[in-house]
Amino acid sequence: MGLVVKKFGGTSVGDLSRIHHVANLVHDYKQKTGNDVVVVVSAMAGETNRLIDLAKSCVARPEPRELDVLVSTGEQVSTSLLSMALMAQGSKAKSFSARQAGISTNTSFTKAQIEEIQDERIRESIAAGFIPVVAGFQGINQSGDITTLGRGGSDITAVALAAALKADACYIYTDVDGVYSTDPRVCPEATRLDRICHEEMLEFSSMGAKVLHPRSVYFAMAYHVPLCVLSTFEPGEGTWIVKEEELMEKPIVTGVTYRTDEAKITISKLPSDPKALSTLFSVMAEHGIFIDMITQTGFDGSKTDISFTVMDDDSTNALEIVQQLVPELGAQGAECDRDIAKISIIGVGMRYHSGVASQMFEALASENIGVEMISTSEIKVSVVVPKKYWEVAVRTLNQSFCSHNIEVSVEK
Amino acid sequence: MGLVVKKFGGTSVGDLSRIHHVANLVHDYKQKTGNDVVVVVSAMAGETNRLIDLAKSCVARPEPRELDVLVSTGEQVSTSLLSMALMAQGSKAKSFSARQAGISTNTSFTKAQIEEIQDERIRESIAAGFIPVVAGFQGINQSGDITTLGRGGSDITAVALAAALKADACYIYTDVDGVYSTDPRVCPEATRLDRICHEEMLEFSSMGAKVLHPRSVYFAMAYHVPLCVLSTFEPGEGTWIVKEEELMEKPIVTGVTYRTDEAKITISKLPSDPKALSTLFSVMAEHGIFIDMITQTGFDGSKTDISFTVMDDDSTNALEIVQQLVPELGAQGAECDRDIAKISIIGVGMRYHSGVASQMFEALASENIGVEMISTSEIKVSVVVPKKYWEVAVRTLNQSFCSHNIEVSVEK
Repeated sequence: MGLVVKKFGGTSVGDLSRIHHVANLVHDYKQKTGNDVVVVVSAMAGETNRLIDLAKSCVARPEPRELDVLVSTGEQVSTSLLSMALMAQGSKAKSFSARQAGISTNTSFTKAQIEEIQDERIRESIAAGFIPVVAGFQGINQSGDITTLGRGGSDITAVALAAALKADACYIYTDVDGVYSTDPRVCPEATRLDRICHEEMLEFSSMGAKVLHPRSVYFAMAYHVPLCVLSTFEPGEGTWIVKEEELMEKPIVTGVTYRTDEAKITISKLPSDPKALSTLFSVMAEHGIFIDMITQTGFDGSKTDISFTVMDDDSTNALEIVQQLVPELGAQGAECDRDIAKISIIGVGMRYHSGVASQMFEALASENIGVEMISTSEIKVSVVVPKKYWEVAVRTLNQSFCSHNIEVSVEK
Repeated sequence: MGLVVKKFGGTSVGDLSRIHHVANLVHDYKQKTGNDVVVVVSAMAGETNRLIDLAKSCVARPEPRELDVLVSTGEQVSTSLLSMALMAQGSKAKSFSARQAGISTNTSFTKAQIEEIQDERIRESIAAGFIPVVAGFQGINQSGDITTLGRGGSDITAVALAAALKADACYIYTDVDGVYSTDPRVCPEATRLDRICHEEMLEFSSMGAKVLHPRSVYFAMAYHVPLCVLSTFEPGEGTWIVKEEELMEKPIVTGVTYRTDEAKITISKLPSDPKALSTLFSVMAEHGIFIDMITQTGFDGSKTDISFTVMDDDSTNALEIVQQLVPELGAQGAECDRDIAKISIIGVGMRYHSGVASQMFEALASENIGVEMISTSEIKVSVVVPKKYWEVAVRTLNQSFCSHNIEVSVEK
């Protein structure tokens, strides 16, 4: 007999009929497998935003401690309703607030981090035959105040609980049936992945694939929690997020991701002086501007062009700052291009194969898509292309690397 | 510098503009008087019922522990919003859940009773200059589970907190500006009472005047908490509920109350046997039927007619039980009259004056209202009259006893 954690997101408990569906699913699983189950739930879909809007309608800048008191009611409602629904199925069930579940966090309201889980009450409850239904997304700080974990927090609760309880698996139920090679809305040929390793999943989630929050993937990786993403509404095995060494076959490219919410800033003829670079990026950091890609190209011996991408929302601010710095840096000028998209191919198999980048450029060239920036890491190649081509680029790269799960032959 | 508790009911915090109004009121009070303030709030109007309906839509019979988890979110929302609104006024404020406020109850979910308040955190918060905003209506039992106190629970929270903190006063803000000699909707001549003693208030609230729950009055009486009922929306001194000895003048009749939700059951020719009476009422008790008035009239030496009132909802059930008992009791028969109303006059001054009942019957007779049952206590005379006359009876009695605060001359 094993123990698993099952987490259901806001869409999965979005209304009473869905709550009963989830109760059914959990009840049946326990009946069929004999495994113990701990459930983690999010607030009903839309509820967290409703509560945040309520606070913002009340005062211009809601105080973070009080905002957390308010927002945390969302999960409290879900835990009680799901417990009732489980009992209606004939299961023994009991709701747990973060406090009752022993989830301690630091004091950063609205974006707290879990520090410790004292899981005695949950263990006792399991031993007594109950299905504990735990409020995701929240914790208690040292002062006994309610905190929330920020976006994606319920996933983190689930993975952290699975780690603390040494669960055999943590299932993240959502409204998609797994992780795809790329976004199926953009590319109907996208294929569902049976397995993906943590490092790949981190790249997927940082790149805007909204299936799992990166923090929960880190947690799962650090604490060796076998993680599975699957659909609440459709049957299927989902996608397992596993250790790299557990990948039975290592496709070179696992998937294609994209971002369309960044802008590119280019500074021309910057003196090739290490101090210039450090000045530039420390000023950006002081202004809280997050830099994503940075590329630098040689121009002549003493001057260089440098491009970097920032979030579109920050781009006006970032350009102003850069333009003020241009004289001090001794550069020629700076400009901003908002019509860009970043497309990445991801796969741990790249570690063992070369020629991936060239195949990528070939595929893009075959559609006449020019590449404006290139950045590579061990398991990823990212390019910036004109925004108007982004869907074409995604489809072309998925076709080239991921279609039919055919291993592309590349030279070592 | 003093300390007061101010409690605001659901209507008082029914929407965001009202929450800001309450924040204003509290902020101004603290600024003007220099007194420390602890605020107790109910859920926003309609929210508790919405949550109960949600539970009942989810499952036929919501489990009490989970129902309390669900319903208690209502006050949690109010405390956070009101704290934010107070901060927006420039006050220091902090929300307190029942747990944070140290409110311990027994384990009776949905109708728990407060057993202890460990008020250190609240005291510390006051000392640090904060206005604690405490969730009414809820507590924590010994297992650390959330409980709720049942209807009227927020008033009880306020009074219990005032008692624990040895507050100088407890203000119950509501949508009426005090306690009236009778229901102003029925009798426009009803006058607002400046003072009323606990015993009178208990009679008022048991009789259906919805201003204060009897349990909170008991609490205030037991712990000597000076209590004031006043309006959130209109200026005014409200009504103070004080000890009998603090009533400066003791009008004979303070007010007139009524109930129209009872039915009268009459058993005719019951043998005058103490065992018959005890059988009758113990059977009713076994069936959970609450008996209000009981009157008995001599018929002949060995037989008696007995009438009693029950809640209208219970009357069909009660009549059936009684009819089954009739042969065993040796009575002649039983009948039920649903077209009745109970009208009471209340006043501690009755203790010191006679002739009150006769003045009551005179007043009713002057309107040709026949009296079907009479029951008297030290501070109350209740009569049952045909339901169609109930408003006339209330107005007549208010006119006779309470109008213009003129002391009625009665013979000693």
